Amino acid sequence: MDGRRLRADRARQVADLLRREVLHGGYDRQLPLEHALAREFGASRNTIREALDLLRAEGLIERCPGVGTTTATEGKVPHGLHRLLGLAETLHEHGEVVNEVRSMTLIDPPGVVSERLRTTGQVVYIERLRRLNGVPLSLDLTYLTRDMGEPLMDADLVHNDVFILLEGIAGRPLGTAELTIEAVSADPHTAAVLGTTRGAALLMVERLAHLSDGRPVDLEFIRFRGDRLTMRGHLNRTENPWPS
Amino acid sequence: MDGRRLRADRARQVADLLRREVLHGGYDRQLPLEHALAREFGASRNTIREALDLLRAEGLIERCPGVGTTTATEGKVPHGLHRLLGLAETLHEHGEVVNEVRSMTLIDPPGVVSERLRTTGQVVYIERLRRLNGVPLSLDLTYLTRDMGEPLMDADLVHNDVFILLEGIAGRPLGTAELTIEAVSADPHTAAVLGTTRGAALLMVERLAHLSDGRPVDLEFIRFRGDRLTMRGHLNRTENPWPS
Repeated sequence: MDGRRLRADRARQVADLLRREVLHGGYDRQLPLEHALAREFGASRNTIREALDLLRAEGLIERCPGVGTTTATEGKVPHGLHRLLGLAETLHEHGEVVNEVRSMTLIDPPGVVSERLRTTGQVVYIERLRRLNGVPLSLDLTYLTRDMGEPLMDADLVHNDVFILLEGIAGRPLGTAELTIEAVSADPHTAAVLGTTRGAALLMVERLAHLSDGRPVDLEFIRFRGDRLTMRGHLNRTENPWPS
Repeated sequence: MDGRRLRADRARQVADLLRREVLHGGYDRQLPLEHALAREFGASRNTIREALDLLRAEGLIERCPGVGTTTATEGKVPHGLHRLLGLAETLHEHGEVVNEVRSMTLIDPPGVVSERLRTTGQVVYIERLRRLNGVPLSLDLTYLTRDMGEPLMDADLVHNDVFILLEGIAGRPLGTAELTIEAVSADPHTAAVLGTTRGAALLMVERLAHLSDGRPVDLEFIRFRGDRLTMRGHLNRTENPWPS
């Protein structure tokens, strides 16, 4: 066996377990010293160093001579996958979400938008850069049916999730959303908008939310910074009783 | 407004809608010509070209002079998020999953593994490179309680999902799994193993599966190639009746 290859495999293995500890607050700010980690994981100091390098490259930890290894200042926040939640709702324990509205306009939608929203005529397009505690977290491109979207144009989009506003307009809760989750690399312009590096990993979510009567009203394309957010949920082995 | 910035915003907007069409088979192999797309999206040819460049960088489409724009040969496959599914189960319509077992051994687990599996003593560690139709799709690092893992070491791991094998051993279905989904960049070694480029976006999943009596038995760290897989599911606005 090639020794270097083996060490890289071991480093990945250790990195995954350290990632878990860091993400779930298993450590305070300060991580244990390398020799303590080497003992804990039954690995060489070189393997531990390589594992820490992997997590540093992800932006999860910071390493400073003299200070040692600490969790990143900003850290990752968890987005609930257990039910349909807006960003401010799911992150209310983690700080304040403030939205910069980059665009808000009535448009003649391309066919794919009309089909998904089951509408003819114009729709409302809203583009928001969303910050948590002042740091960019996501860039959201939103298409809304005109009847739901137009009242929204006078609402306070800076401090509110679209979901809450839509429920106020509809006078009843939203129903179900279909979602697709992908990992993509940040193109240069998106990276600049999100304040991250070119090629950084992003969690890309496409989500179509329906009113409780099944009518689709809100089509979103969301890019989350991969270094700032995780998604967390549960799955059952037997089919969940989805209403769809 | 800066014209270049505006075009990049418009190109992202078009790219997201094109991505949707490509992922859900809205086009055959061949995409419409640039001028037809320009008309469809009410955008300039330059914007369309920039949008197509974004999707080409993601590996979703291919562009050849004379041939035009086609969807990528391999394409992305959807992993169901509606219930707890093994890879071969969820992809059975998309081809054959074959697993290369890179490591399979009893280990003295680090504390974090013992805690999550609520076990003392040794656990079984299995590392698999999983291919769909011969092309690498994911790298899975798996920790199993010894009682469930040891019988698995004699089973056909090359052609079976661990879930199915575990259910055979336990004599009953699995229950619930907790999962965390992240986007991370591929480190050089992982990229080489998965046959992708350094820094490529990966969907990283940590998943702890329990037997139906609630005992945790299977802790996995999974790296999916972002250019080959999406996750798809539904969310309800009102709380789903999770058993946890």
